[in-house]
Amino acid sequence: MATKHILIVPGDGIGQEVTAVGKKVLDKIAARFGHTFTYDEALVGHAAIEATGNPLPDETLTKMRASDAILFGAVGHPKYDNDPSAKVRPEQGLLKMRKELGLYANLRPIKLFDELLDASSIKPEILKGADILFFRELTGDIYFGDKGRKNNGDTAFDIAEYSRFEVERIARKAFEAARTRRKKLCSVDKANVIETSRLWREVIQKIAPEYPDIEVEHQFVDATAMLLIKDPRRFDVVVTANLFGDILTDEASQIAGSMGMLASASIGDGTGVYEPIHGSAHDITGKGVANPLASILSAALLLDISFGMKAESDAVIHAVDQVLKAGFRTRDIANAQTPADMIKGTDAIGEEVLNRI
Amino acid sequence: MATKHILIVPGDGIGQEVTAVGKKVLDKIAARFGHTFTYDEALVGHAAIEATGNPLPDETLTKMRASDAILFGAVGHPKYDNDPSAKVRPEQGLLKMRKELGLYANLRPIKLFDELLDASSIKPEILKGADILFFRELTGDIYFGDKGRKNNGDTAFDIAEYSRFEVERIARKAFEAARTRRKKLCSVDKANVIETSRLWREVIQKIAPEYPDIEVEHQFVDATAMLLIKDPRRFDVVVTANLFGDILTDEASQIAGSMGMLASASIGDGTGVYEPIHGSAHDITGKGVANPLASILSAALLLDISFGMKAESDAVIHAVDQVLKAGFRTRDIANAQTPADMIKGTDAIGEEVLNRI
Ligand SMILES: CC(C)[C@H](C(=O)O)[C@@H](O)C(=O)O
Ligand SMILES: CC(C)[C@H](C(=O)O)[C@@H](O)C(=O)O
Repeated sequence: MATKHILIVPGDGIGQEVTAVGKKVLDKIAARFGHTFTYDEALVGHAAIEATGNPLPDETLTKMRASDAILFGAVGHPKYDNDPSAKVRPEQGLLKMRKELGLYANLRPIKLFDELLDASSIKPEILKGADILFFRELTGDIYFGDKGRKNNGDTAFDIAEYSRFEVERIARKAFEAARTRRKKLCSVDKANVIETSRLWREVIQKIAPEYPDIEVEHQFVDATAMLLIKDPRRFDVVVTANLFGDILTDEASQIAGSMGMLASASIGDGTGVYEPIHGSAHDITGKGVANPLASILSAALLLDISFGMKAESDAVIHAVDQVLKAGFRTRDIANAQTPADMIKGTDAIGEEVLNRI
Repeated sequence: MATKHILIVPGDGIGQEVTAVGKKVLDKIAARFGHTFTYDEALVGHAAIEATGNPLPDETLTKMRASDAILFGAVGHPKYDNDPSAKVRPEQGLLKMRKELGLYANLRPIKLFDELLDASSIKPEILKGADILFFRELTGDIYFGDKGRKNNGDTAFDIAEYSRFEVERIARKAFEAARTRRKKLCSVDKANVIETSRLWREVIQKIAPEYPDIEVEHQFVDATAMLLIKDPRRFDVVVTANLFGDILTDEASQIAGSMGMLASASIGDGTGVYEPIHGSAHDITGKGVANPLASILSAALLLDISFGMKAESDAVIHAVDQVLKAGFRTRDIANAQTPADMIKGTDAIGEEVLNRI
């Protein structure tokens, strides 16, 4: 019986709709397990720009620091995407949050629910049993180095940077996670070309002997992009830099059939942030069809990682599994065989999950 | 009836075995179409380091500049991969060649031979008809910017850089190629985070009105990594920066069932270089099992692009197609249904192709 304060940060687009369902799931867990969860809400991204001119207002940051965990939606708006010279962008809110809260480790579990084996474009016999845990570094690399223009704006540059310390702290988290799993760690870099990758590989090689029970492999990012599709089961824990992690985890989402199913945890020095890996999806915003399961599974990660509530977390995952087993689908994970009346909207599939907790 | 001088640069590992077959195919084409092809050979990569201490000896570069086209094998050696601090590396030869010859455009056609529809880990119904032409920028980005260490080696950095000029020249090649195809261009960047990507997108947006017949789309690299697997048929021509291109084209190779089938052309200011996208594959070197079809298809690209010999190029592609239709396979593209006696080694499958030209 614990008392916890959770900040809901819906952000933009479908973020609003899916975090509302995620919050209901947290509520149900509190009731069922006798915990007290209190909530607050805060703005980020385009929503925050519209309201305050700032994609991460100070008030939001203060609330984030004061909470025990954060359930996050999504940020982004199409209007910035086609305006490369926009000075204020929703994504800055996300990146600043990661930096300010010291969220240096982004965990993305890629696990397939058996019922969705067919939803992927990859052959079921290649996928079956795939279970990968990504550790993406989240506060360094080309995301946070100096960037700008030279030669009257005709040349652009971005600086990628990593320190030993930054590589080591995420690597240790990945090694430790591998210990609780199948004891395999794949470190992904581009050490044949890039200096930050050479440092990355050096650090992994240096600390590997401290984890003699873990089998370590180094792969280049280009080969990994190929191997993830060719043979996803060869991977257990994967650790990589910020930019490579961004690309590879989105690619790997296809293994799970749909981005709509994937949750992520961003952890480090401060309050943990839990969010779907899908984006703000403005094309379907407000239509009530967004898949809330990634937000629900983000709530499950929140319970497990930030609150140490393993049984509660498992209860959520089990409920999602039961809903899929019962045949319910949102549009994005339905296929030609799904009966029309089993295709549910955001709230309706949320209710099915709540009923099973 | 033309006279051309071709430089064969086998490089490392299976590069030797596969370019030998590629050269035979060029010879056969010369005989069949009445051309005169003369040849020379030169060292690169690990082979060149062993012989001269330099991964791209001056002699090789001189020969490259003096030839009409280059058939290239592969570079790389496992011993450098596990030594992030090695000062001299085979890959430096490859990168220096690209820079010295001004090979700013790397073309990678991703097209599936119908017979290999089943060799991919992606479902045949998702793949059927996929036909993508990548334009990867090859002489800029984080590959060629300053890189190094600070803080006593404890911090590593890499600088990514692009000028308008560099983006524009590759973009124009891609726009022009789209004109000869399905008239769709997808430009891939990470403009929501990276300044070089913002410049990239600006340049594409600026020149797009000059190609009103081409439908232009901008995608983020993370979304593209996902979409390539989810729905490869949505892409026609894809243009992207050096690092993103490295990752996405390797990923896309899985669409073609095997890296062993994919050829690439590197073109620009100087002599064109034609090479398989697979690497040196030291694990199978010398065993006579390497798939030479990518080298043969590289020879086809060479004939088409550097020599303007379209009929000759088509004859090669047609022969490869006939060999696959006849049921012959190398090990990497065989499956459980392939009869054992149809699985051929490097030279044997090469002979089958030669017989059909
Ligand atoms: C929105 C964008 C800045 C962000 C990133 O690149 O990190 C997103 O793609 C993600 O993966 O969370
Ligand atoms: C070997 C390596 C330097 C090279 C690259 O990254 O460009 C290779 O992966 C390629 O794609 O040609």
